[in-house]
Amino acid sequence: MTETLGSTGEFGLIAAVTKGLSQSEDVLVGPGDDAAVLAVPDGRMVITTDLLVEGRHFRRDWSSAYDVGRKAAAQNLADVVAMGARPTALVVGFGGPADLPTAWALELNQGLVDECELVGASIVGGDTVQSDKIVVSVTAFGSLDGRAPVLRSGARPGDEVAYIGRLGWAEAGWTVLARGFRSPRAVVEAHRRPQPPYADGPRAALRGASSMCDVSDGLLADLGHVAEASQVVIDVHTKALTVPEPLQAVAAATGADALKFVLTGGEDHALVGTFEPADVPEGWTVIGSVAEGNEERPPGTVTVDGAPYAAETGHAHFRS
Amino acid sequence: MTETLGSTGEFGLIAAVTKGLSQSEDVLVGPGDDAAVLAVPDGRMVITTDLLVEGRHFRRDWSSAYDVGRKAAAQNLADVVAMGARPTALVVGFGGPADLPTAWALELNQGLVDECELVGASIVGGDTVQSDKIVVSVTAFGSLDGRAPVLRSGARPGDEVAYIGRLGWAEAGWTVLARGFRSPRAVVEAHRRPQPPYADGPRAALRGASSMCDVSDGLLADLGHVAEASQVVIDVHTKALTVPEPLQAVAAATGADALKFVLTGGEDHALVGTFEPADVPEGWTVIGSVAEGNEERPPGTVTVDGAPYAAETGHAHFRS
Repeated sequence: MTETLGSTGEFGLIAAVTKGLSQSEDVLVGPGDDAAVLAVPDGRMVITTDLLVEGRHFRRDWSSAYDVGRKAAAQNLADVVAMGARPTALVVGFGGPADLPTAWALELNQGLVDECELVGASIVGGDTVQSDKIVVSVTAFGSLDGRAPVLRSGARPGDEVAYIGRLGWAEAGWTVLARGFRSPRAVVEAHRRPQPPYADGPRAALRGASSMCDVSDGLLADLGHVAEASQVVIDVHTKALTVPEPLQAVAAATGADALKFVLTGGEDHALVGTFEPADVPEGWTVIGSVAEGNEERPPGTVTVDGAPYAAETGHAHFRS
Repeated sequence: MTETLGSTGEFGLIAAVTKGLSQSEDVLVGPGDDAAVLAVPDGRMVITTDLLVEGRHFRRDWSSAYDVGRKAAAQNLADVVAMGARPTALVVGFGGPADLPTAWALELNQGLVDECELVGASIVGGDTVQSDKIVVSVTAFGSLDGRAPVLRSGARPGDEVAYIGRLGWAEAGWTVLARGFRSPRAVVEAHRRPQPPYADGPRAALRGASSMCDVSDGLLADLGHVAEASQVVIDVHTKALTVPEPLQAVAAATGADALKFVLTGGEDHALVGTFEPADVPEGWTVIGSVAEGNEERPPGTVTVDGAPYAAETGHAHFRS
């Protein structure tokens, strides 16, 4: 008989999950008490949280449990590095139905553990509950190691806009999966497991990034947040953006606009930042510029090649 | 037309929720960026997380949105004080259906805010997503202000067991609600809004509590966690436990065992701790003793008046 959450029970699942966890020296009290205790030598803690719901953020027929774990950790760790911080730990809330195979929950956990290992973070606590649909909440923590946090509000007129990581791949993967296809494999894999450029967040902070955020809603939407918070105008230069071959293939096969994947696709968790022209770090691609607002283009505006962008700029949760 | 999450949208909801938040001086970066930044002058951060799911942890016909907010915050803040820490902040993940009135989400938020205000904690970030059933994840943080954390593993033979707060009230409330009644009002209110004795956690730590935890699963179940972690035997003396009148009334009306409410009812978030006899703080009730294990009663055992307790000792999530 397959073991399920119902037969394993809450405490059985917690025991199985925590058995395999390794804890860094920053973990003063790990899982198993009312709360964890984490050393915060910097005196400041970076905190971010995300909630993933089955059917909305992942589908069990599209992604393995392991993939869901990787992605749930990745999207939170990406938020931490987008502040210029080094991820240190996370806590996880997990809800699933009583008939879910226990193996599914353990594979999810392994995905979380393996993604954390990429950055040296520990899983320090969690909660498990019963729920009709699978729900995963992740809260991630990071250390600034003495640096100032890089906010969305620091972009200045004259800065260049640059990004590092992937743009549009996850959206292209979603597009083919939604039509019942499983290829091109590269974009399907990108949808299942984002690959945020973790090390580049703290590096950009050291290089003096004036603003930074991770691209979770889509490039134009997230630059909109930067433009709004910084009260500037941002222009994106499409000639600086290359459209990778797999995205072109998806666009050709589905009648989609390949450039739109790049401009509006979310969930790849690239990093986009603003820098003084001399400060753009190696490996980043300059794709735009920051200017002051004026009457025609008020602060908070994002333009594409100098003009407003016609289509929707990114995800809109809650709207159907 | 009633505004709903679908018409308000994710960003509209976030804007409405964050507008009313006040932030303590410990909040270096509040809601609105990729992550929040919290000052941690103690150099150690206490962290706990809980996931609440509609239908499992609350019902919209039994509890108002405001009540759910109070309870979601309370159960996490109680975990923080059970470590002997002072709650400082929390982050919230919220999922709800597109047709949920926006007012429901705002009332939930007000409940979270008001419960936090009792202890001086700030809401520093969150996430909102679409979900068929309402889901609330809360991660709470606390400062030890230089004290050692009070763990479950510190109980020593010779210690006395004492508690402060309510035992069995929420379970009695659940019992009458499950039968379609709304009274006695005191126990129904206790089910809707626990009243953890927040200030007594740090006070007990200062008085030298050797172990402590919050009673979320039920007194015997949670003492079982302490006995197991401390590798001791704990005996509960029922003559020291009073059964409050409303619990007796519910037991009489429903054929339940009133003492069982007290011994196994969870979700009141009382605090139970172990102390050297001279150290039991004012206001706490001594209800048991700690002894070494032996062959007959191995470490980890909890007895009631010297004998095993026959019925289930507390909540068992996942099992139906």
